[in-house]
Amino acid sequence: MKNALLNLSLLTSSVWSPISGGITAPDGFLAAGISAGLKPSGKKDLALLYAPDGACCSGTFTQSVTRAYCVDLCIDRIKASEGKIRAVVINSGHANACTGSRGKIDSEMITHKLAQLLRLSSEEVLICSTGVIGEAIPVEKVNSHLDQLINSLDKEAYLDAANAILTTDLQVKQIAYQAVLGGRRISIGGMAKGSGMIHPSMATMLSYLTCDVGVDHVLWSDMIKRVAESSFNSITVDGDTSTNDTFLAFASGAELDPRYLSILEEGLHLTAQHLAKSIARDGEGANCLLEIKVEGASSDLDARAIARTIASSSLVKTAVHGSDPNWGRIIAALGRAGTSFNLNDVKLWIGPYEIFSNGTPLDFDRQIVSNFMKARLTGKYLIDDLISIRLRIGIGTGSATAWGCDLSDQYVRINADYTT
Amino acid sequence: MKNALLNLSLLTSSVWSPISGGITAPDGFLAAGISAGLKPSGKKDLALLYAPDGACCSGTFTQSVTRAYCVDLCIDRIKASEGKIRAVVINSGHANACTGSRGKIDSEMITHKLAQLLRLSSEEVLICSTGVIGEAIPVEKVNSHLDQLINSLDKEAYLDAANAILTTDLQVKQIAYQAVLGGRRISIGGMAKGSGMIHPSMATMLSYLTCDVGVDHVLWSDMIKRVAESSFNSITVDGDTSTNDTFLAFASGAELDPRYLSILEEGLHLTAQHLAKSIARDGEGANCLLEIKVEGASSDLDARAIARTIASSSLVKTAVHGSDPNWGRIIAALGRAGTSFNLNDVKLWIGPYEIFSNGTPLDFDRQIVSNFMKARLTGKYLIDDLISIRLRIGIGTGSATAWGCDLSDQYVRINADYTT
Repeated sequence: MKNALLNLSLLTSSVWSPISGGITAPDGFLAAGISAGLKPSGKKDLALLYAPDGACCSGTFTQSVTRAYCVDLCIDRIKASEGKIRAVVINSGHANACTGSRGKIDSEMITHKLAQLLRLSSEEVLICSTGVIGEAIPVEKVNSHLDQLINSLDKEAYLDAANAILTTDLQVKQIAYQAVLGGRRISIGGMAKGSGMIHPSMATMLSYLTCDVGVDHVLWSDMIKRVAESSFNSITVDGDTSTNDTFLAFASGAELDPRYLSILEEGLHLTAQHLAKSIARDGEGANCLLEIKVEGASSDLDARAIARTIASSSLVKTAVHGSDPNWGRIIAALGRAGTSFNLNDVKLWIGPYEIFSNGTPLDFDRQIVSNFMKARLTGKYLIDDLISIRLRIGIGTGSATAWGCDLSDQYVRINADYTT
Repeated sequence: MKNALLNLSLLTSSVWSPISGGITAPDGFLAAGISAGLKPSGKKDLALLYAPDGACCSGTFTQSVTRAYCVDLCIDRIKASEGKIRAVVINSGHANACTGSRGKIDSEMITHKLAQLLRLSSEEVLICSTGVIGEAIPVEKVNSHLDQLINSLDKEAYLDAANAILTTDLQVKQIAYQAVLGGRRISIGGMAKGSGMIHPSMATMLSYLTCDVGVDHVLWSDMIKRVAESSFNSITVDGDTSTNDTFLAFASGAELDPRYLSILEEGLHLTAQHLAKSIARDGEGANCLLEIKVEGASSDLDARAIARTIASSSLVKTAVHGSDPNWGRIIAALGRAGTSFNLNDVKLWIGPYEIFSNGTPLDFDRQIVSNFMKARLTGKYLIDDLISIRLRIGIGTGSATAWGCDLSDQYVRINADYTT
């Protein structure tokens, strides 16, 4: 009977259900997105996320040495205020990276003005910038639109905000989940931008997450680190880390019964993974979402290294683009991932098809597998456009998943023809 | 007067002059290259390199966990014989990687037969394979052609050998240098294959070097490790290490006056770097040789990490292909190379043009720089097709150079359309 119940619980889906809405789905959060004339196109280019009093913020950031000053500002202020952040302003079009001493001055001027208008201290306000590297923010334009931005704050303005943070993205990226935990309705919201991490010149992956439960800052920071690992640190489009990458997560509201914390974290992972997959799928020139699942490794760390190496391989990505079940390239990428295993233990699947087992290729029907890949490459966006590659490399308990996309000639044309 | 002499010595070129010939230029070495019917095209596909009695061999090899058995065989036999290797047979078309237990058996059968015919012990004979991963060597075909192969051994057959080791290469890769050291004429020869390290499915970079001076095995091994670092470990086409990468270097002849050893090593570096650059330039779909020079780093190791990261960046490579002086992508790649520096100290040149200085971009003429790049992208093969990117990142003494090529839509088409 116990086994039957276990099986049943595996069959039932997560307690978290997607709902309509975005970053403002959790109680108390407001957002705004307007056009401040920063983008020549006239599209929305200035966003504001406003968190309730008492909200707690943690973040993860680019590891780049040439990171923009706004990243340092976020790190410093979250640390100084122990996460007591109330507002984030986001400008798109100008990365404000590699702009010399102006980077610091401009970021501080904008957040200072915004803090005054919102009657907050500067320490409670963050700024994120995304756009062309080497281009400073037109501070006057931004500052003269801050009143309008604040007046636009609304629970219903989540789509405006999600649009205002985009640069070369083809798709808006947002999601909201809801669950009832201990009789209490809890919501998680998220929005992101990034056409992959492939835009060091139109910099940045930016991601925001909100949640209407209160969580201790240290506990929340630990959760957010784990969430970032399983989502934004598990995607790759071309391995080019940007100067501005930022993920900020807010928790605000009554505390949660500790026994539900693991379920809460599951919801955070779901939300962040959805946003991460949206970014990978929106990689320049991409036609599918590529998923690499690695199991049986001696540790999760090993599994992640392998999954990321395969998802980043230009040869694997071009083979996928050509709907070519080229297992040799996958095995070669596995071999150089820097982890140890016995090739004789390796099994490999593309979609539902087993391709390689115990150190040797199986006699699979290439045409059938290729047709499967071809169908996915023309499938509906984030619905049936997933090509999954699964590897079992031993009997260890380590596992990980990484996401990427195919590498197309379109990617090269976009990046070669883009004129500075 | 001393200064004038120093300047003069800087102006005079290396004591090493390129001469016609290849792997057999040094005294005593013989080579052969024949068609054994391994390639469907009927092109040459079986090569033999024969070293004089007393020759000393060292090598460097792929770090891949999924490496072919022939790599293990080379490592084991060089170790067991302390470098006393006399012959290397090279088959092209079949990588003999991921072929299960056959990999070992087939490699041993061929080298056993060859050793018998050459009246050597098996321990003195190596095998290198290059071709499609997962495909075993047609042992019967190889073994039935070994007599013909041995009969073809000749000092003049260097071009045959250099041709027989190619797979998808567009160009033969060989070079010979000569110098007179202490009144003695010394030659270094080399040949290589590899359309970049971009062929895990048509596996392999293979490189061979010969030299007609005797050098102690330990000393020689140390030199060869340094030579590999400055050449084959400093090129990248798409970062996909192959399962079969092998570099073997032979020294054979009378010992050299120790005071000339550093000049000898200079010649070895020249030879290996020429072969390495030939491989990078012959990368699939490439139109130029991309050279990344990093100076002023705190160590050579740091400089190499930066040079390799930039040379591997898809965004830098596509920008180069589009003759776009996109410094933002170069600086972003610099930032994620995992080394520390101060952005305010960074200077950047593309060709002769200074682009970026002290943390900010200079007001350079984009059109002039773009035209310079465009001319190089259509320049003559390894003559005026070099696009050099130079970075000075501080006041340290560490420096390094890495080579790569542009990333073209042609690269994607070749790798997507290639059918397994």
